[in-house]
Parts: sequence; C-alpha cells; structure tokens
Amino acid sequence: MKIAIYGYGNLGKGVEIATKYNNDVELVGVFTRRNPSEVKTLLNTKVYSADEILSFKDQIDVLIICGGSATDLPIITPNLAKDFNVVDSFDTHAKIPSHFDNVNNASLENGRIALISSGWDPGMFSIQRLYAQAILPNGADYTFWGRGVSQGHSDAIRRIDGVIDAKQYTVPIEDALDSVRSGSQPTLTTRQKHLRECYVVVEEGANKEEIERQIKEMPNYFADYDTTVNFISLQELKEKHSGIPHGGVVIRTGNTGQNDENTHVIEYKLKLDSNPEFTASVLVACARALYKMYQRGDKGCKTIFDIAPGDLINMSSQEIRKTLL
Amino acid sequence: MKIAIYGYGNLGKGVEIATKYNNDVELVGVFTRRNPSEVKTLLNTKVYSADEILSFKDQIDVLIICGGSATDLPIITPNLAKDFNVVDSFDTHAKIPSHFDNVNNASLENGRIALISSGWDPGMFSIQRLYAQAILPNGADYTFWGRGVSQGHSDAIRRIDGVIDAKQYTVPIEDALDSVRSGSQPTLTTRQKHLRECYVVVEEGANKEEIERQIKEMPNYFADYDTTVNFISLQELKEKHSGIPHGGVVIRTGNTGQNDENTHVIEYKLKLDSNPEFTASVLVACARALYKMYQRGDKGCKTIFDIAPGDLINMSSQEIRKTLL
Repeated sequence: MKIAIYGYGNLGKGVEIATKYNNDVELVGVFTRRNPSEVKTLLNTKVYSADEILSFKDQIDVLIICGGSATDLPIITPNLAKDFNVVDSFDTHAKIPSHFDNVNNASLENGRIALISSGWDPGMFSIQRLYAQAILPNGADYTFWGRGVSQGHSDAIRRIDGVIDAKQYTVPIEDALDSVRSGSQPTLTTRQKHLRECYVVVEEGANKEEIERQIKEMPNYFADYDTTVNFISLQELKEKHSGIPHGGVVIRTGNTGQNDENTHVIEYKLKLDSNPEFTASVLVACARALYKMYQRGDKGCKTIFDIAPGDLINMSSQEIRKTLL
Repeated sequence: MKIAIYGYGNLGKGVEIATKYNNDVELVGVFTRRNPSEVKTLLNTKVYSADEILSFKDQIDVLIICGGSATDLPIITPNLAKDFNVVDSFDTHAKIPSHFDNVNNASLENGRIALISSGWDPGMFSIQRLYAQAILPNGADYTFWGRGVSQGHSDAIRRIDGVIDAKQYTVPIEDALDSVRSGSQPTLTTRQKHLRECYVVVEEGANKEEIERQIKEMPNYFADYDTTVNFISLQELKEKHSGIPHGGVVIRTGNTGQNDENTHVIEYKLKLDSNPEFTASVLVACARALYKMYQRGDKGCKTIFDIAPGDLINMSSQEIRKTLL
C-alpha cells in the first residue's frame, strides 16, 4: 500500500515514523505548503510541494492529511477527497456532521473513499464508547483526559502579555475516577472531573500575580476548573516539559439482572508518551483498512464506526481468527 | 428484530434479561431440549421444545445458541446454521478454525449468516487485542483473567472424592500487572500471572490434607499455579460465593519514535458482577449487527472482527457520528 503525508508538523512526523513499523506500507513522500527545500524529514522521506500533488494521483493509494482542525482540514480534506483516498483526524466534535457531509460529497465525485475524525479521541475512544453502550444500554459513560498536554490551553497561556512560554497539563481527578468505577453513575461537574496544571515562563519583571489571575479567570479555558500555576525557568520548561504525552480513560458502568442487581464496569485506558505519534499510528492502521474497503468497491466518507476491526491489521482473516480470537 | 434463545442455562437466562434493555429486540421464545413444561423462565418468556424449532424458521431473525463449547456447540451451531441466522459463544480457542469452517459451510447452504465465538473472551478481549496490535505493531500484549469464577476449575475440584461443593477464583497477580503496565514487555510464566483461590466444602471426616494435595497437584488445572485452598462450610459457600463474577485485563504496550523512545500503554479492563449476563449482553448486540448485515445481503460465518462497530448499536449512523464520535 502506497501512502503519502500531506502536512509535515508533529502529526505528519508521527505518520512518517509509524511507517517504520508497518512493512506493508510504502511511504511515497511528504507534501508541504512550505518550500520543500526547507523541510528536512526524520527518515529521509522525499519532500514535494503541495502544489504538485495532483500529478501523484495514480501513485498514492491513501493520502494522510495532517493539518489543524480549526482552519486547515475543513478546506483541505474535501478538496483532496475528490482525487485521493484520504484520512484525516478532524477533532472539532461539534462540526463533525458538516465535515462528514462535505467530505462525503467530494469523495463520491470520483468514486473515492475517505475517513474522517480518526485518532484516539475522536477515534479509539469513540469506538470504546460505542461498544460499551451497545453492550450495556442501561448505564452511563464517562470520558476523562490526561494526564497530558493540551496544546490549545498551552497556546492560550502563551498569548498573555509577559508570558514567554507555557505548558498546560490536563489531569483527571482520582476521586472522580473512583466514584465512576464504583458503578454509582455520579453526576460530575467540569470542576470535579479535571484539574489544570500550568507551567509558565515569564519575562523578567513581569507581574506574576496578574498573569496567574488572567490564567485562572480565562473563560472557556480555565475559569471552570481548579487550576494551579507554576512559574518556572525556560531551562526547566525545556528539561522537564518538552514532551507531548497524553492519554485518558473511557469508562462505562451499567447494570443487568432481574432487578438490575449486577453492575459491570468497562474501562479503556491510554497512557501515551507521544500524543502525535500514537494518533499517527491509528491513522496508518485506518489507511490500511480504508484501502481494503476501496479495493472491495466501497466509496464515500466513513468514520471509524464503519470499519470492521479485521481490516485494520496486516493479517489474513484466517490468521486473525487463529491467533487473536 | 425477533430473536430466540436455544438452550436455557445461565447464558440463556442472561440473554432473556438482556432483551429488557434493548427495545428494538423482540424475544420470540426459549427453545429447550428439556421438557418445556418443566422450564420456568425469569421473565415469563414462552418455552418451546427444541424439536419444534424448524417450524419457527420464518419467525426468528436471529437465533442465539446458548450451549457448552465442549460437546454442544460443535454439533448444534452448524446444524441450526442451515436454517437460521445464528450467534454462539464457542470459546475453545484451539478449535475455532474448524468450528468456523463447519458453521460457514452450513450457513452458506441456504444463504444464512452466522457469528461464532462472541462474548468477552473470545469477543471483546479479542477485538482489543486486534485494535492494539494494529495500532502498535512494535509491542507485546498480555491477557489477564479475573478476579473471577472459573467453572471448569470449580468442577474439577468437585470431582475429587470427599468434596461436596467448591468454587475457584482465578486472580491476576498485581506485580505482574504492574510490570506489564510499565512497558517493559516482561516474559511471564503461568505461575507469575495468576493465582488460584479455592473455597471447598468437604464431607464430615474427609481427609482435608489429602484433598488439598490433590487440588494443588492436579495437572493442567492447578499444578502450574500457586494455589490456596480454604475449607469452608456449605452455608458460607452459599452466602459468600454464590455469584458468578468475572473480568480481566488486556494490555498492550508498544514503542514508537525515531529510536523507539516513546512508550504507549493500551489497557482494556472488565469487572463483571455476572459473567453470563455480560456475555449475553454482548451476544444480543452481535445479533443486532448480524441481522443488519444479513439485510444488506451478507452471508456465511463471521466473527466479531468482521463486524463494523456501528452495526452493534440501535442508533442511526448520523446519530452515532453526532453523539459518540
């Protein structure tokens, strides 16, 4: 299977690395909107200008689009879906229905196939929510994120006057996790579920109290949470907070029995040293499944809910049944 | 969707209960090889003789076969798959390939569809192993069972002279779980992964030392494990050990990165108050998916690997994308 990467940020780099571990995958190249001569790839993958991509139409089985959900993917994915089989990781939950429709229409123009909103959330977490709800309709589910870096929240802190750099960790609250795992199906507020932990580097002479107040009172981002702010040096930030770890937990508890007397707990947990590399690994598995579906004549836009698990892996059905069932 | 239950033991009862929570499911009846007048159902479901089943051919969309894997299912499932869409929970891992072939051939005779080996292991655990391997090819996975009741091991103790009744719990060893979760990919022996905890009721005057020795040295069942034997009264067994809880954990850890420097941990955990009721809940969701696939023209034997997750739930694709993705 020949894949290519469109967009070479952290996620694109993650896809490049993921191809190392998948020997049925050949990486055709990286397509960038920057000047290709200025982009150096991690594994010496060839770099092309995004403008050239249409001339590769017959050489790419699946194109993995690695862009931001805010402004890039809503335009780029439908655009490329006309001529390529594409995979993206669009993660603005509220806009998934309209993105789906746009990509579906584009994809059907030339009988292509597409997969949107893959990764781990949306993606693997979504599947877990679905499986658990399908099995235990009489129950409730909960998603916790972290401990991990939120780029959006880190960026929000960086925009404050006097801030040089910052890293924000989202941290699930253990008491909340415990009460969910008990099966009591608690109602939890935003504040009860997650803490926000900030590491902030400020300019010399900056008003730390004022910066801390601005962070803690920032609407949407921090105001609804218990937030801790730690001022540290740039060196400490680089040494201790340069990674992009993330993860989280999806838990559903539900009841069965003549009088609903039996409680069941389903828990799915991810602990990831590198958020983009893990997300990229999911995208590559999805690209494989999508290509199998395309070869069977399937068309239009899909989500991870439409993919039979067996298509994700580089193994025959017989082998899967023998070794994994 | 009209379903029926074939075989009314603990699993059959679980299916009957599961239909309470799935309002798109209508339960046609229970089919038993016993005298129907002697079978009382939990929710007043009608009971028919297994001999009558062929006359219900057009009234049952999916037949859920609830029998034992040792002798029942290898015969019954292929037999019924000729005339019905069937689901079973065949769990003798080594014999899955031949069971699959037998059911597939039978099912294709009249263009029916079938699903074998569903439940939680094989079933949900199998899917988790597959997803995790597909995402992290460079890694290792581990399955732990328990804390939960093993019927096979309990039965083995009951067959010892002087034993009136017994319950055996399989218990995963915390140290082993911790070393797996660390990402170190340890090699673990059978003894390092699980303990076996036995509660045994013996006849008056029985030789407890001899019984304990026989349990601990029993090949295949106990000899390879650290086993504890607790002699208790029949009353205590009934009061404290009458449930059928089970569960377990599937963990895969793997690495990505330019130098494999990033570790990822994927963990799926089940804690079930009632093993048969949870298994039954999975079977009902699978019956739903199977019926959707049948209506789309799909035929022959399937496993959980062939089922797109979206088919398992009683929701439209649009609704799923909007609420669960």
